[in-house]
Amino acid sequence: MKVGFIGLGNMGAPMALNLIKAGHALTVWNRTRSRAEQLQPSGARVAGSPAEAASGVEALITMLSDDRALEDVISDSMDSIAAGAVHISMGTISTRLSRRLSEAHREKGQHYIAAPVLGRPDAAAAAKLFIIAGGPEEQIGRCRPLFDAMGQKTFFAGPEAEAANVIKLAANFLITAVIESLAEAFALARKSGVDVNTFLEVLTQSLFSAPIYRNYGAMIASDIFEPASFRLALGLKDNRLLLAAAEEARVPMPLAGLVRDRYLAAMAQGLAGADWSAIARLAYHDAGLHLTEAAG
Amino acid sequence: MKVGFIGLGNMGAPMALNLIKAGHALTVWNRTRSRAEQLQPSGARVAGSPAEAASGVEALITMLSDDRALEDVISDSMDSIAAGAVHISMGTISTRLSRRLSEAHREKGQHYIAAPVLGRPDAAAAAKLFIIAGGPEEQIGRCRPLFDAMGQKTFFAGPEAEAANVIKLAANFLITAVIESLAEAFALARKSGVDVNTFLEVLTQSLFSAPIYRNYGAMIASDIFEPASFRLALGLKDNRLLLAAAEEARVPMPLAGLVRDRYLAAMAQGLAGADWSAIARLAYHDAGLHLTEAAG
Amino acid sequence: MKVGFIGLGNMGAPMALNLIKAGHALTVWNRTRSRAEQLQPSGARVAGSPAEAASGVEALITMLSDDRALEDVISDSMDSIAAGAVHISMGTISTRLSRRLSEAHREKGQHYIAAPVLGRPDAAAAAKLFIIAGGPEEQIGRCRPLFDAMGQKTFFAGPEAEAANVIKLAANFLITAVIESLAEAFALARKSGVDVNTFLEVLTQSLFSAPIYRNYGAMIASDIFEPASFRLALGLKDNRLLLAAAEEARVPMPLAGLVRDRYLAAMAQGLAGADWSAIARLAYHDAGLHLTEAAG
Amino acid sequence: MKVGFIGLGNMGAPMALNLIKAGHALTVWNRTRSRAEQLQPSGARVAGSPAEAASGVEALITMLSDDRALEDVISDSMDSIAAGAVHISMGTISTRLSRRLSEAHREKGQHYIAAPVLGRPDAAAAAKLFIIAGGPEEQIGRCRPLFDAMGQKTFFAGPEAEAANVIKLAANFLITAVIESLAEAFALARKSGVDVNTFLEVLTQSLFSAPIYRNYGAMIASDIFEPASFRLALGLKDNRLLLAAAEEARVPMPLAGLVRDRYLAAMAQGLAGADWSAIARLAYHDAGLHLTEAAG
Repeated sequence: MKVGFIGLGNMGAPMALNLIKAGHALTVWNRTRSRAEQLQPSGARVAGSPAEAASGVEALITMLSDDRALEDVISDSMDSIAAGAVHISMGTISTRLSRRLSEAHREKGQHYIAAPVLGRPDAAAAAKLFIIAGGPEEQIGRCRPLFDAMGQKTFFAGPEAEAANVIKLAANFLITAVIESLAEAFALARKSGVDVNTFLEVLTQSLFSAPIYRNYGAMIASDIFEPASFRLALGLKDNRLLLAAAEEARVPMPLAGLVRDRYLAAMAQGLAGADWSAIARLAYHDAGLHLTEAAG
Repeated sequence: MKVGFIGLGNMGAPMALNLIKAGHALTVWNRTRSRAEQLQPSGARVAGSPAEAASGVEALITMLSDDRALEDVISDSMDSIAAGAVHISMGTISTRLSRRLSEAHREKGQHYIAAPVLGRPDAAAAAKLFIIAGGPEEQIGRCRPLFDAMGQKTFFAGPEAEAANVIKLAANFLITAVIESLAEAFALARKSGVDVNTFLEVLTQSLFSAPIYRNYGAMIASDIFEPASFRLALGLKDNRLLLAAAEEARVPMPLAGLVRDRYLAAMAQGLAGADWSAIARLAYHDAGLHLTEAAG
Repeated sequence: MKVGFIGLGNMGAPMALNLIKAGHALTVWNRTRSRAEQLQPSGARVAGSPAEAASGVEALITMLSDDRALEDVISDSMDSIAAGAVHISMGTISTRLSRRLSEAHREKGQHYIAAPVLGRPDAAAAAKLFIIAGGPEEQIGRCRPLFDAMGQKTFFAGPEAEAANVIKLAANFLITAVIESLAEAFALARKSGVDVNTFLEVLTQSLFSAPIYRNYGAMIASDIFEPASFRLALGLKDNRLLLAAAEEARVPMPLAGLVRDRYLAAMAQGLAGADWSAIARLAYHDAGLHLTEAAG
Repeated sequence: MKVGFIGLGNMGAPMALNLIKAGHALTVWNRTRSRAEQLQPSGARVAGSPAEAASGVEALITMLSDDRALEDVISDSMDSIAAGAVHISMGTISTRLSRRLSEAHREKGQHYIAAPVLGRPDAAAAAKLFIIAGGPEEQIGRCRPLFDAMGQKTFFAGPEAEAANVIKLAANFLITAVIESLAEAFALARKSGVDVNTFLEVLTQSLFSAPIYRNYGAMIASDIFEPASFRLALGLKDNRLLLAAAEEARVPMPLAGLVRDRYLAAMAQGLAGADWSAIARLAYHDAGLHLTEAAG
């Protein structure tokens, strides 16, 4: 298929490459042009503007995780998208923007799919992403070759595009709940004199053998949160999008609120660039365990 | 080994049976005598009192999940336990009682092991429990044949018995965090118009394939919380023990506090006998989703 | 002084009237024109547009409690404000908008004062408002005759306009904390069999004799939340502005988060139009006290 | 009246003195005998044991704020209390213990009144306490001369003694809510660049002129929490009693839970002896405001 691809960050770049490998014709654009040019040797055509990337393609994929960045790009390129073509937004954006885009594209005779993903850059590189696609079922079906080139499995979230965004935000929230619960549990264990490695072993060799427990448990046990698997500042952003969706729907989410406070406190302590599981530092601090200072 | 076994509830009975099957000589006692007599055909000797169950055995196992019940039983039987024999407390009791028992037995020249378990009655029946054992390492080693007969794996929590209780309580807490996060996530999804079965499928076929997500997710998606896999009233009890341990150690656990409030509210709504994941009903209610009423 | 006044709701109308009574020349505008015309007999000139209200005045007062409404009005009228004239924004708006307006006016050679108020319509009518004024001190001094005509006391919040907005939002937050604490306390008292009128009497005749405790305590004791002294939907709005200010400043406010959840749950139960102390209904419900149903 | 008085701490000593001044005959006992002897010059008779203090009196007043201390004293002295005499428990004890004492005294043909107080040592010295009395109305009437000698006002909480304890605990909880809300509000104001003294002035000269706001606001604004008006460790104890009462009654109190976590964190930071408003240090810390370190 002829595909435009905008947003070539840690996730977007490997996703675009996988599309090229699968034989699709890509026109790419990125704010920092050099990242687009890195795909030229693989066969991508580099566009000079979002509008150029959007012109004459059957599908325009955006992989932008910031509402404002996506709004800017789309306001530039919307009129260049052909009638009948589809915009696939794969970044973690707000449900509100997804709903607005859905309407805006419909008015122009274009299609819109929200298709956020679960997985990190390594999964993107290995084409092992989980893709959650919401929007008109036939359009999703038509784009299946694209999804298959990028992910291991594509779920149909429903005919309303924003359903996919809700599911994505909720999935991220479930991870933060795991992190927060581990943070509190490790604070208790450590302060109670339990060996943290023993604790980690018991958990991960019994009921909590899933990778999320193993990975974040290991970080929290060691009190080392760099390099970040997912930056804390992004965790705050996703939490904000979740709470906004919950507010619109009139759904109280007390645990999400608790997590919000952790992220704000962590930002205030200068942990924006650490892994989002670094909120465990706050749990340790509150318990009077001053590990980092001792280490410093 | 000659073993006394006190506490033949849903967990204790299959555990005792597995010990008999493995060739150990059991003297059993239960407050409701009929439950003890059910083990007679399998070869258990039924004691007339806790003291009798404790007399002349190398190991006295108690499987009582209530501090008071354990205190009563031990105050009756402590003097009957032989010097050098070991008391293995396998129920979910408070860290404080575990610490006290540790001292009390030591003063009598007896040994004490805290060995709470992870797993439900079906795991107990299948000898698939995870056993977390804390106390003198050599005593734990000596009792290994017993543990091997009841569980699939035994962890050494450390030389302080109460470390095992801390780990057990923390593990249960991690499960409640999963339940609470699922409750909030499903309330959001449902209120946002996402199909809950689709939501459940996306979660459990991507990052959240672990049984705890599958089992509790299915209950919450269906809004059916009976029969209970673990009674909500017991969830509140374990949460209380956790918060008591956290208070003693001066460790704030805000998520555990949030869960506490859910359990109290659920008890107030008459859900004591439902599965502990029934706190999702509160999340649904707070979001204005009156499912049960509609169903009633 | 020659004054433009935009926003003649329950608060704005009596404030404008007090300015007229004090001898100031008012040109007024309101989206619903009839509310502006009601001030004509008192001597107000009715403008046909925000721009007209802003033209040729020394001070333009806006009493709009919604960021968007204020943005719309100001984008229409900004160019009509004379250089050297001052815009006094007296509604409860976001700190972010206040900061933006401060800059925008400065660029135009205009002045900006944020002057939100504490007090309800009856205090506005009696010219008994507390006014919290932030911005250039000399401008605030120049506008003192206006403030004196509307309020009983004007505080200088500091040279940064938005400081006044922060203080206003924080003050409202303190009231919500009183409401939430009363809600929980009454739920406990009632469920424990304490007579709620006795409880209210003990509180308000001892340490808690301040009007906020008396007024909200009486509503909560009687479980009657209408007519609203302040609509719950507005309480949620102010809470949202507070949390936004806190997020920008990286300040976790867990109690504000808890209150947010109460307001969302209350909205979901259809309480948007009730008094903001109606969150007590949720506390009663969570405790298993189904008062309203019994009453219904 | 002939009165026994047990518990001569900062509160009990001035209360006993006021009873003596009012002409009552006091027999006093205190664990640390020297504190009892300090009342001898004023006319008190010093008992050698709780039982002696309880013998032959019409009323036995206990001013002990710790359940265990009260239990010890009463188990020693209960049989010495004459039939028809009344035990007035004025300390802040659990509702559970109050209920138990009520029954125990009834069985012995004795009377029991719970009469906790609102007010600090200075109010006790000035006989300005607020007394909340629960129990048989005629007994409370009979003891009125005693209450009048110690307080400015006595409330009748109801015929169930424990109602008085519930009200006392709830009143203390309302104070902690004020403290927590001020803590968060000052953290926001300070971090946002608002002058904290200005902030304090606006609050206390407008809607929040009550002494609780003035006193705790001043401490929090200055970040000085010593000397303690009420020790943080006692605040935690009262919070624990509140949460226990709430748990028994099946009443979730999320704000009380939040306060609990603050107190635990404060204890973990070594603030047990500071004023209970020192939880503001945690709010400051979480916001990245490291005031104390800067001051150190």
